[in-house]
Amino acid sequence: MEQNSENRAIQDHYAEELSHCYGCGRLNPRGLKLKTYSDGEETVSVFTPEACHTSVPGFVYGGLIASLFDCHGTGSAAIAACRRRGLHPGRDPVPRFVTASLKVDYLRPTPLSGALKLRGFIKVQKRRKVVVGMTLTAGGEVCARAELTAVEIPEGMRP
Amino acid sequence: MEQNSENRAIQDHYAEELSHCYGCGRLNPRGLKLKTYSDGEETVSVFTPEACHTSVPGFVYGGLIASLFDCHGTGSAAIAACRRRGLHPGRDPVPRFVTASLKVDYLRPTPLSGALKLRGFIKVQKRRKVVVGMTLTAGGEVCARAELTAVEIPEGMRP
Repeated sequence: MEQNSENRAIQDHYAEELSHCYGCGRLNPRGLKLKTYSDGEETVSVFTPEACHTSVPGFVYGGLIASLFDCHGTGSAAIAACRRRGLHPGRDPVPRFVTASLKVDYLRPTPLSGALKLRGFIKVQKRRKVVVGMTLTAGGEVCARAELTAVEIPEGMRP
Repeated sequence: MEQNSENRAIQDHYAEELSHCYGCGRLNPRGLKLKTYSDGEETVSVFTPEACHTSVPGFVYGGLIASLFDCHGTGSAAIAACRRRGLHPGRDPVPRFVTASLKVDYLRPTPLSGALKLRGFIKVQKRRKVVVGMTLTAGGEVCARAELTAVEIPEGMRP
């Protein structure tokens, strides 16, 4: 990939009509705007929750954690598909994946006290289906783990 | 249960210090305020997404769906624990459950066009652990299915 596109998140390369996602769409004014980057063989995102994203006071809401995994997983699948197909984000159209299933294990309460770091790695890759493993770390501790099955967006879901 | 408490959601009976959840806390001014009710042996919630809760235009964001299952699942676990322990919400303190794991299967794209209905049923119940099966229906079609393992809130997580 070119230096320039390496520095931008995969979500910044999604087609405009597929960039309204609440979790990661650059065109959703009220959304979370998660950004997923390549990092060697893996992928990484960083997200800092707001005070409202609480479960019980002091801890991060599990639904937010699932949301971050959702968008980091589909973004990781898009990055993996680009690599496999020899596509260069920024030059070529980027494939868009959606979630078929998501399993989250909440290993310990996640402190609501700063940045959360997500890492992703590819477990299985087929042409239009990618299984992504992920971790969510807060303050150096892995607080949640996930596995997401992503599929390339079906025709009937395209705007 | 008394007629009066039957008409209120389980979340409206959570202790004040445990009612700040982004997904279902009555005291979170920016949250979703999901409400879970008993319905015979099952549980039910209804939630109408806003326009911002999109994935690709026309469809509901998967992270929102996971969030609704998260709070409907823990609410269903609290209802089940009340029944088993002979507790009457509104009169007795209500136990509070948190999510240990959540698996969501997105069966078909969920249309962003009105109310979503969640149903829950108890699959396994132990003293401090409850496994809840759930469905999410839109326009009469089941669009997603989930299984959630809830555990009673650990001491270290209490405010």
